[in-house]
Amino acid sequence: MTQLIKARQGIITPEVQQLAAVEGLTPEELSQRVAQGRVVILKNKGRQGMAPVAVGEKLRTKVNASIGTSSDCVDFEDELKKLRVAGNAGADTIMDLSTGGDIDGFRKQVLHSTTLPVGSVPIYQAAMESIAKRGSIVDMTAEDMFEVIERHAADGVDFMAIHVALNQSVLERLKIQGRVTDIVSRGGAFLTGWMLHNDRENPLYAQFDRVLEIARKYDVTLSIGDAIRPGCIADSLDRAQVQGLVVVGEMVQRALDAGVQVMVEGPGHVPADQVAATILLQKQLCHRVPFFVLGTLVTDIAPGYDHITAAIGGTLAAMSGADFICYVTPAEHLRLPTAEDVHAGVIAARIATHAADLVKGVQGAWEWDLAMAKARKALDWEKQIELAIDPGTAQRIRGERNAAGAEACSMCGNYCAMKVVGEYLGKPKENC
Amino acid sequence: MTQLIKARQGIITPEVQQLAAVEGLTPEELSQRVAQGRVVILKNKGRQGMAPVAVGEKLRTKVNASIGTSSDCVDFEDELKKLRVAGNAGADTIMDLSTGGDIDGFRKQVLHSTTLPVGSVPIYQAAMESIAKRGSIVDMTAEDMFEVIERHAADGVDFMAIHVALNQSVLERLKIQGRVTDIVSRGGAFLTGWMLHNDRENPLYAQFDRVLEIARKYDVTLSIGDAIRPGCIADSLDRAQVQGLVVVGEMVQRALDAGVQVMVEGPGHVPADQVAATILLQKQLCHRVPFFVLGTLVTDIAPGYDHITAAIGGTLAAMSGADFICYVTPAEHLRLPTAEDVHAGVIAARIATHAADLVKGVQGAWEWDLAMAKARKALDWEKQIELAIDPGTAQRIRGERNAAGAEACSMCGNYCAMKVVGEYLGKPKENC
Repeated sequence: MTQLIKARQGIITPEVQQLAAVEGLTPEELSQRVAQGRVVILKNKGRQGMAPVAVGEKLRTKVNASIGTSSDCVDFEDELKKLRVAGNAGADTIMDLSTGGDIDGFRKQVLHSTTLPVGSVPIYQAAMESIAKRGSIVDMTAEDMFEVIERHAADGVDFMAIHVALNQSVLERLKIQGRVTDIVSRGGAFLTGWMLHNDRENPLYAQFDRVLEIARKYDVTLSIGDAIRPGCIADSLDRAQVQGLVVVGEMVQRALDAGVQVMVEGPGHVPADQVAATILLQKQLCHRVPFFVLGTLVTDIAPGYDHITAAIGGTLAAMSGADFICYVTPAEHLRLPTAEDVHAGVIAARIATHAADLVKGVQGAWEWDLAMAKARKALDWEKQIELAIDPGTAQRIRGERNAAGAEACSMCGNYCAMKVVGEYLGKPKENC
Repeated sequence: MTQLIKARQGIITPEVQQLAAVEGLTPEELSQRVAQGRVVILKNKGRQGMAPVAVGEKLRTKVNASIGTSSDCVDFEDELKKLRVAGNAGADTIMDLSTGGDIDGFRKQVLHSTTLPVGSVPIYQAAMESIAKRGSIVDMTAEDMFEVIERHAADGVDFMAIHVALNQSVLERLKIQGRVTDIVSRGGAFLTGWMLHNDRENPLYAQFDRVLEIARKYDVTLSIGDAIRPGCIADSLDRAQVQGLVVVGEMVQRALDAGVQVMVEGPGHVPADQVAATILLQKQLCHRVPFFVLGTLVTDIAPGYDHITAAIGGTLAAMSGADFICYVTPAEHLRLPTAEDVHAGVIAARIATHAADLVKGVQGAWEWDLAMAKARKALDWEKQIELAIDPGTAQRIRGERNAAGAEACSMCGNYCAMKVVGEYLGKPKENC
């Protein structure tokens, strides 16, 4: 039985019990949201030694960090370093997107090296194996796809992005409208090539029940891959995207009916004034299941700084109801990220989710800022550093230009507003 | 005569003529907005060899970079380097906030070293000189303040932050409500100390006509300093801030009546869901004159990353109608920025303003993103780098892990979605 089925039966699982405490809810409240499908508990039934994470409505907004080899860069040590860096920076989950080297071996290493929930995109590996075995992606069989999905589930993967909502009707609408960047989802691109070449329906769509069966067996949370997401500002909210979302909604309903935990992936590149509508539409069409956004990136023109464009869009998305943010690193659109990029990406995403959590009323969010403000007012530098989202970086920056033990900072020196006002405001005049 | 007075008389000045072309308007349209006070032209009548900049309604959102010495760090070479870095990164204006060393000498150097409009905060220098001459800030005279304002104007400063809207009624309300961080404006703090110690009204408020006279004489644009801005999330939109804004509105009206160009400074630390209301309130209370925001910072907990928190808030602010964004660097709240911080701050602020300009319908904004999207689709790396907001950084990051001349990037290698789909979509099947 999945967490969803148990919640519907009124069973408070140990995971719900524990996560309710973490999120500041009663177990009954959390369990009810799980039963409605509005919260998912990321935990593969078979995975041991991991700490489950809850994602969804009114919970703290979570951050995912993606790592993994590519066909151009296969360096397991470096990827494991990224895994550690991501965890230390505060990522809530890890996705292994490897497409190079011993993909099975690396996934097992990831699953054993972290207590965080781990996600994957099985179609990547299925495509790589098809190239190796059959010479091309388009010669991949449906069996190849389902076999890899089951392999990942059996290994203990907690959530999987599967592009089950890309079908011929969506591709047809994409062709009618035309797009600047067509398809930018890697899994979506593999399947599109396959569907067009073979002139057949997407097996993941056509045989969705097989996906559901595997997901239910292992209680893997399905993350319905956003194959048709816009890859640039100009393509946002076009007819192909909205058609895709309609199909996603139908898949969500089937997953919920089958007792399978499910969330939905979302864009992508979205102009700042379309973010709220994008989230609202997803929530309306998809039974208010959790929304996992990839960004969102509010402009296309800042390669090298896409952790910042994604932090802007991520805040807007999370404020509007997105529950889970996939980080974007400064390397996005340019190259495979380094460990340093991973750190920058996680911190930027956490700033975005926290800024949103402040206004979503998430437990503890407001108190964190208040504690920092009080430490600033008190010129308590030790406390400010301790409360910083990244204490190491704050400490390093402050240390570069300040005398050790200085009361203020080198920006204003002795003429710090906090210091000046502290001497006057609230004290009787005769004491001045 | 100021640009405002000329515009009201229907005179199209050479500055309006030139800036209308830059902004994609007719000279008549721009002149009308200047006449209404909704656009200001930053240019001191006496300053030669500079390029004026227009700030205001429906124009491209502008970015200011602040530089200047502090009492702890006096290094003119370093500050001049920051000036160059800021200009190269695309700042539209520079503010010299110096409080250390030969302040007059440095200001003159800045004015001669850049063609950008230069702003200043005269109260800083007046306070430093009072300490030198009279032993304390609280012994500063009103004459000291006005003399420095005139000195800056005579030197050619194009816009000045002057805290003319801080009065005893505002301080009284601050005391009644109480605040976590009281006053964080440096100029506001000096004046608050002065007002409380001397138990007198703020001379800049009480003798506002003298400020107006100087501003009109030189056509200096007044930037009404946000003395009472919230210094933390918890203080946002409290009664003191709103009282301050009411007084600001009255000062704006008097400036407009006097034919003086005027804009209003705004916060500061603002929760993401209060940004739109903050901008709306300012525009409503202050005759829709341009709004110059300092951030806005959407959380307090990210010292070391405040260029990111400010980019989030800056996008929200500019989308909601803010016209001018003061950059925030990664050093904010920690120390005086370095040249590297200045670069990071300007780029982050430009990302924010551009993301907003995309949805404000600013001329050329949408086309920039579209050109980048097309370059991505075409895998045209030279063009992508050329179109990047910071080509040097984009080039460096890409170069670190990609084979020279590689068609895709090391993120996806040969399995780039653009590449895969390009091979199938839109081509007849028989060609596959």
